[in-house]
Amino acid sequence: MRAVVLLSGGLDSYTAAAIAKAQRFTLFALTVLYGQRHVREVEAARAVARALGVERHLEVEVDLRAIGGSSLTSDTAVPRDRDLEAGDIPSTYVPARNTIFLSLALGWAEVVGARDIVIGVNALDYSGYPDCRPEFIAAFERLAELATKAGVEGARFRVHTPLLTLGKAEIIRRGLELNLDYGLTHSCYDPSPSGQPCGACDSCVLRAKGFREAGVPDPVLLG
Amino acid sequence: MRAVVLLSGGLDSYTAAAIAKAQRFTLFALTVLYGQRHVREVEAARAVARALGVERHLEVEVDLRAIGGSSLTSDTAVPRDRDLEAGDIPSTYVPARNTIFLSLALGWAEVVGARDIVIGVNALDYSGYPDCRPEFIAAFERLAELATKAGVEGARFRVHTPLLTLGKAEIIRRGLELNLDYGLTHSCYDPSPSGQPCGACDSCVLRAKGFREAGVPDPVLLG
Repeated sequence: MRAVVLLSGGLDSYTAAAIAKAQRFTLFALTVLYGQRHVREVEAARAVARALGVERHLEVEVDLRAIGGSSLTSDTAVPRDRDLEAGDIPSTYVPARNTIFLSLALGWAEVVGARDIVIGVNALDYSGYPDCRPEFIAAFERLAELATKAGVEGARFRVHTPLLTLGKAEIIRRGLELNLDYGLTHSCYDPSPSGQPCGACDSCVLRAKGFREAGVPDPVLLG
Repeated sequence: MRAVVLLSGGLDSYTAAAIAKAQRFTLFALTVLYGQRHVREVEAARAVARALGVERHLEVEVDLRAIGGSSLTSDTAVPRDRDLEAGDIPSTYVPARNTIFLSLALGWAEVVGARDIVIGVNALDYSGYPDCRPEFIAAFERLAELATKAGVEGARFRVHTPLLTLGKAEIIRRGLELNLDYGLTHSCYDPSPSGQPCGACDSCVLRAKGFREAGVPDPVLLG
């Protein structure tokens, strides 16, 4: 069975893809080049796709910088050392990003005959983005039926979110059980020109907390 | 009030945008460059945006040729003189196209503070595409609430489909009442290298039927 997996080059999507692979899905990895701040993220996605042995790795360009509205797709500063418990939605929120990503995944799924889409969203150790919540995912599955020729012909698309209710440390433990090499991944929203993580953005802070709680060192920070 | 309008350069989206303008919306026109077969379509979108006096016209590139699966985004032949009554979904169907387009429109709407999105879909004189049906549009509105920061904060997005139940002749009559210049538009799926319509694809056939039933000549075919 084929699955289209959204692969960003981060720790979460790598783990989600590996879980799908362990469930015997043949992986079709989709990386969306949306005008991220740093090319390091895309290089990580390629390395992760290779390590996973995906059937195909497709990179699709969508220039979300044209749309703007986020510190990830504009020259606005990425917030550092933010209070993650505050419950607000930070400036790193990219308007409609997961809707756009899932739509592209749906299109490709229909083309390659996949009925399963995998996305590494997480609603526990996360930044409070609305499009990481289970009710959003359920609404997208409903939309997918109505949006496609395959749906009209009776296909039911399923969006798998294997990390949805896991804490970051649990995600890392699960990945280590699957022998993943997290040294290949890149999580930082705002790396240095040479690609070094900043250590202070939400993504770095959540990653560090995860490795700390899992009781293992982050291989990206070694050496 | 601001509205994001999906503008393709065709007759339908031009008319839908003009209806929104007549309803006093300030128009933010979005054209998706998705790897269409002919640049003529994009030129038409620019001309139409100018004629409408839109506040802004944004062109976003999304390479749907990478995803493929359609005669509009690959080198497969576009069908000619097809039986439009047959009820099947033709090869010009682009997997998940309107889902992708509406997702991008939603992202931009959130950025510019619009709560209204306008799309010129039509479920009467059309090619049978699943993502032109009212149930698809309703499901997208529901998704938009859940997908966005604005939705979490209580905004309700509305997707306007002013042409949904109109026949092609009615659309043209409505546009002529609004003084639209259909000579600016381009509908053909498979034009000649110089941009002349083929006259035989679904889009040309539906357009010709519309002008014939409206009792007016198609300005694109004059002169």
